[in-house]
Amino acid sequence: MTKRIAILGASGYTGAELVRLLATHPEFRIVALTGERKAGQPMASVFPFLRHLDLPDLCRIDEVDFASVDLAFCALPHATSQAVIKDLPRNLKIVDLSADFRLRDPAAYEKWYGQPHAAPDLQTEAVYGLTEFYRDDIRAARLVAGTGCNAATGQYILRPLIEAGCIDLDRIILDLKCGVSGAGRSLKENLLHAELSEGTQAYALGGTHRHLGEFDQEFSAIAGREVRIQFTPHLLPMNRGILASAWLDGDPQRIHAVLMDRYCAESFLHVLPFGTTPSTHDVRGSNFVHIGVVGDRIPGRALVVGVLDNLCKGSSGQAVQNANLMLGLPETTGLMGAPVFP
Amino acid sequence: MTKRIAILGASGYTGAELVRLLATHPEFRIVALTGERKAGQPMASVFPFLRHLDLPDLCRIDEVDFASVDLAFCALPHATSQAVIKDLPRNLKIVDLSADFRLRDPAAYEKWYGQPHAAPDLQTEAVYGLTEFYRDDIRAARLVAGTGCNAATGQYILRPLIEAGCIDLDRIILDLKCGVSGAGRSLKENLLHAELSEGTQAYALGGTHRHLGEFDQEFSAIAGREVRIQFTPHLLPMNRGILASAWLDGDPQRIHAVLMDRYCAESFLHVLPFGTTPSTHDVRGSNFVHIGVVGDRIPGRALVVGVLDNLCKGSSGQAVQNANLMLGLPETTGLMGAPVFP
Amino acid sequence: MTKRIAILGASGYTGAELVRLLATHPEFRIVALTGERKAGQPMASVFPFLRHLDLPDLCRIDEVDFASVDLAFCALPHATSQAVIKDLPRNLKIVDLSADFRLRDPAAYEKWYGQPHAAPDLQTEAVYGLTEFYRDDIRAARLVAGTGCNAATGQYILRPLIEAGCIDLDRIILDLKCGVSGAGRSLKENLLHAELSEGTQAYALGGTHRHLGEFDQEFSAIAGREVRIQFTPHLLPMNRGILASAWLDGDPQRIHAVLMDRYCAESFLHVLPFGTTPSTHDVRGSNFVHIGVVGDRIPGRALVVGVLDNLCKGSSGQAVQNANLMLGLPETTGLMGAPVFP
Amino acid sequence: MTKRIAILGASGYTGAELVRLLATHPEFRIVALTGERKAGQPMASVFPFLRHLDLPDLCRIDEVDFASVDLAFCALPHATSQAVIKDLPRNLKIVDLSADFRLRDPAAYEKWYGQPHAAPDLQTEAVYGLTEFYRDDIRAARLVAGTGCNAATGQYILRPLIEAGCIDLDRIILDLKCGVSGAGRSLKENLLHAELSEGTQAYALGGTHRHLGEFDQEFSAIAGREVRIQFTPHLLPMNRGILASAWLDGDPQRIHAVLMDRYCAESFLHVLPFGTTPSTHDVRGSNFVHIGVVGDRIPGRALVVGVLDNLCKGSSGQAVQNANLMLGLPETTGLMGAPVFP
Repeated sequence: MTKRIAILGASGYTGAELVRLLATHPEFRIVALTGERKAGQPMASVFPFLRHLDLPDLCRIDEVDFASVDLAFCALPHATSQAVIKDLPRNLKIVDLSADFRLRDPAAYEKWYGQPHAAPDLQTEAVYGLTEFYRDDIRAARLVAGTGCNAATGQYILRPLIEAGCIDLDRIILDLKCGVSGAGRSLKENLLHAELSEGTQAYALGGTHRHLGEFDQEFSAIAGREVRIQFTPHLLPMNRGILASAWLDGDPQRIHAVLMDRYCAESFLHVLPFGTTPSTHDVRGSNFVHIGVVGDRIPGRALVVGVLDNLCKGSSGQAVQNANLMLGLPETTGLMGAPVFP
Repeated sequence: MTKRIAILGASGYTGAELVRLLATHPEFRIVALTGERKAGQPMASVFPFLRHLDLPDLCRIDEVDFASVDLAFCALPHATSQAVIKDLPRNLKIVDLSADFRLRDPAAYEKWYGQPHAAPDLQTEAVYGLTEFYRDDIRAARLVAGTGCNAATGQYILRPLIEAGCIDLDRIILDLKCGVSGAGRSLKENLLHAELSEGTQAYALGGTHRHLGEFDQEFSAIAGREVRIQFTPHLLPMNRGILASAWLDGDPQRIHAVLMDRYCAESFLHVLPFGTTPSTHDVRGSNFVHIGVVGDRIPGRALVVGVLDNLCKGSSGQAVQNANLMLGLPETTGLMGAPVFP
Repeated sequence: MTKRIAILGASGYTGAELVRLLATHPEFRIVALTGERKAGQPMASVFPFLRHLDLPDLCRIDEVDFASVDLAFCALPHATSQAVIKDLPRNLKIVDLSADFRLRDPAAYEKWYGQPHAAPDLQTEAVYGLTEFYRDDIRAARLVAGTGCNAATGQYILRPLIEAGCIDLDRIILDLKCGVSGAGRSLKENLLHAELSEGTQAYALGGTHRHLGEFDQEFSAIAGREVRIQFTPHLLPMNRGILASAWLDGDPQRIHAVLMDRYCAESFLHVLPFGTTPSTHDVRGSNFVHIGVVGDRIPGRALVVGVLDNLCKGSSGQAVQNANLMLGLPETTGLMGAPVFP
Repeated sequence: MTKRIAILGASGYTGAELVRLLATHPEFRIVALTGERKAGQPMASVFPFLRHLDLPDLCRIDEVDFASVDLAFCALPHATSQAVIKDLPRNLKIVDLSADFRLRDPAAYEKWYGQPHAAPDLQTEAVYGLTEFYRDDIRAARLVAGTGCNAATGQYILRPLIEAGCIDLDRIILDLKCGVSGAGRSLKENLLHAELSEGTQAYALGGTHRHLGEFDQEFSAIAGREVRIQFTPHLLPMNRGILASAWLDGDPQRIHAVLMDRYCAESFLHVLPFGTTPSTHDVRGSNFVHIGVVGDRIPGRALVVGVLDNLCKGSSGQAVQNANLMLGLPETTGLMGAPVFP
């Protein structure tokens, strides 16, 4: 039976990506789209690429009849999300795409986000949304917290290796190359085409990026000890895509074998033949992750490269994948679209 | 019942785009992929973005068992296509994506392509593949000739206006802005990133572009007199998309009304509100066409702008649309995927 | 003797381009840079690419000692410029880069800019800054009004042809392809990389672009009758460059001959061999203009294509060229830097 | 007195960049330009952006009168360069931009380039062209070997740190982000706009990039012991620019102090305030290098980021800088042009 879906915060890129994915989802029907500042407008005026769809106009959140909603995607800004969700019906299934429920520890949340959490009980309730590692919990969850897009990319590379104990936990360097849509549709000077195209630079320097909070939480839990990785993202002149280069101490062949073994049964995760690495071009617009492993000329040192589309697998695609599980559907429903190349 | 599909010439961009579209097509199954120079290779090594699919390896055309094929897409280079198709079984349904069967007149073919046609009987048999205008013929056809991508864009704008007699036929200027994938995966200096990004130039100057042959054929047939438009394409630093700006003599409001009327029942064609024009961003990766009409400050002069994705609606999407018709399926099957934005 | 230069409004792209050009100008020395909102900051924090230069910090306009300034470039926003300039010393030489003094007719100004002019006497005094056509006036001028970048591009193509009477004045279509820096460093959604890269669209539709005011003024004056061209710009995913495609009624060979003749003695204007057209790539970062002429297959119809760098020849380079003249220097001083390719 | 300059191999990007730089060089005059396959053509037909210059046509190397040449830049392909230079007059001053004379050790050359060197005596004679570190040798040299562009970027970051002994020599990771022009004007599929724009991938994987030969040679010499760094470049959708991210073990403040101290007197090298890192946008088209240092949250770990323009400071600008020294001119002559932004 078709599931009735609301998207809160549909006027941003992740909201629009959700609509894109649901447009061909066979079991989901969008019944409400919200956007406080653009309430009353049709989606086609906010996102003309959705013009062909028969969609409800944008409305305010308080106009949504949640009683007739099976699941709500919450694509609101950080901090706004927790304020909104704590007032929603407590039996409503929710997939949140913000950062608000990613960290389970209130102290960690306050450290990385600079203020106390407004809904600490929900913070406890929320299940971390990295599907391939929290599948059973997600299936049973009411509130799922979508991961950070950088955090997802890094974890797909590193989680199996930390679990397997095959890399030096004190020597994990993650150099990220990120597309600009990860910053959202916000009006910032550094996101202008004229400032960004044809060049690159690092940002969130030296261990300050908030996704480190997720890495710390997850990797330490897996390892059973505190794990602190080094991580700096670089902003690239491309709209979609994250390429994570992990410089690791460990046996490259073993690393490759661990990843192959861990992901061989996964629909969306593909490990390349040893010695080759992927391109962000090859996952654009899709829910797929490609991972490659290369050995350095220095024995015992490896480079592991992973790619995904930050808006899809890194955010809205992951959210749909989780919603499928929460609503009892096959996980891949509506998500097997091939990447768009070139 | 699932239809068995062969793609001849699967190692180019239009071939890959066919595979991308068929990947989620509910009624088509790919049983053969050919690539003479890359025969024996898996598609994933030629196009890593297709890695997740279970596809036959590339083979040579003479290795294909056409008896078990319901329909072949032919995405071979111009001139090669006619040589191959004339030796295929005469009962095999074929959608050709090359230029070889677009012109019905052997003399016109020789004029624009510089050599006599090798299969003039098939040239006569072929139905021109602009779906929305040859729908019934296509449904009954054995051999359909895909249109040029520029030719499709121009025709979507101009055909209804010529039919309606609402523009000056001697004053049709078509200024095209084209993405680079229209040139295929060919190794030419002007297609290098370093030569193309961050700049633009005209090409195929002054009435020399071969798609003029299609415009001449089609527009003259509609008008019942010789129609010669002015047309020069410009190469833009983008991979997908064509934006056609048509500078016309005619009443803008009437032009808008004619287009609205003609396309209101079409699934893939959308006419914007009067006074607004579309962006190529809004159709990327999709089978949709957006068209807008603006009045100039000079009365009786109009600007009509149309956009489509050259690889999809301009080529492989159109081909699938036609194949759906030829095989008795609803025309939109597998083609309703939303554009990818941003 | 070194000339002392002030740049008012140095925190925008045209201001920064002035600094770039003056950095290697042998006769100009920057003594003041203003930026009201960023007063007190070093230029290197506003434009890190100027880090290597020994420049005065940004200050407020009222902090500048204009008595010791030989010439001021005024790169302020439209409307602000007239308000500032009317209070500057009346003997100060000024090159204004805004739109405020381009139109000589107060009524035309009010029509295109929506409000009465605040300094109508200066409006009368100002000399239009299209150097190659107002050279003697500029040499003697105190106040020079820089042209619009689109307006400059169109005029370089069209002025000689209108003067020579070799084109139909009622059939002038100018289809412009524009880089994004022409919109300045302003925070607008459509200027974001994610909205702009990999796609194109028209803007300022149907005869509404303000540069039409300049075309009307200049072309009508040349022709001795009212001339109204059709002109719509398209925004391209590139930072610098304008390519103007003019669709004209006239003999292509004669058009080419007129342009060759008119520009053969000009340092910055180059007419290409007949039948070829230029690329914006070939003028990027420079003060050069390339123009090409092509004949259509329809006799008596021509396509003329011109390119320039909107920030340089279309704005700041033009301004320096004019300042050179106003200060008695050779016109090309400091401006012969080659384009940057690729 | 004006120096007479020949450029061998002027039809590639580094050759064209040399012409661009010499176009405004006050002491150099180009007397010969060679291009074997394009001999007889004017430069304007090979590189239309040089149209405004009065240049000799391309000729064959054997047509050059080397007796009247003061210095030859050799911008030929690797391997070709050594074959050509060994037959040139032995008193001719030469700056070679190829890889042929970068490695002093014949065995190292053979290891990295796969064949024995054809001119081992010249290999010994050649001075390594990293100006700021070989200045005196270069001043006295007859044959200078331009460095690799990646090798230059890495060395500007690392040499002072290795000299100062302030980083762990067994823990040097260099993650490079490279513009595409570094690959030259070669027709390769991965250099096409359609394959490269809007995405990124690593290349020359796992310690196989030839510039490692330079790093090994130089760093081991400085350290007095074998130094082997980890280095993998990533290809970015941009034409010019290299951003090197060095992940280092060492005290960040000390690293910053060492770099500040080492480069404070250098014209082209700029160290940013501690905690900030540079953008490739800020050096495009120029001979400048910007370097920044950031401390990680893990004590004793640092990220050092350096940027330069691969075609200019990484190749042709460096070559001119060296030629200036070899011909007794101030090192900065003709090289102080500001970067082009945006």
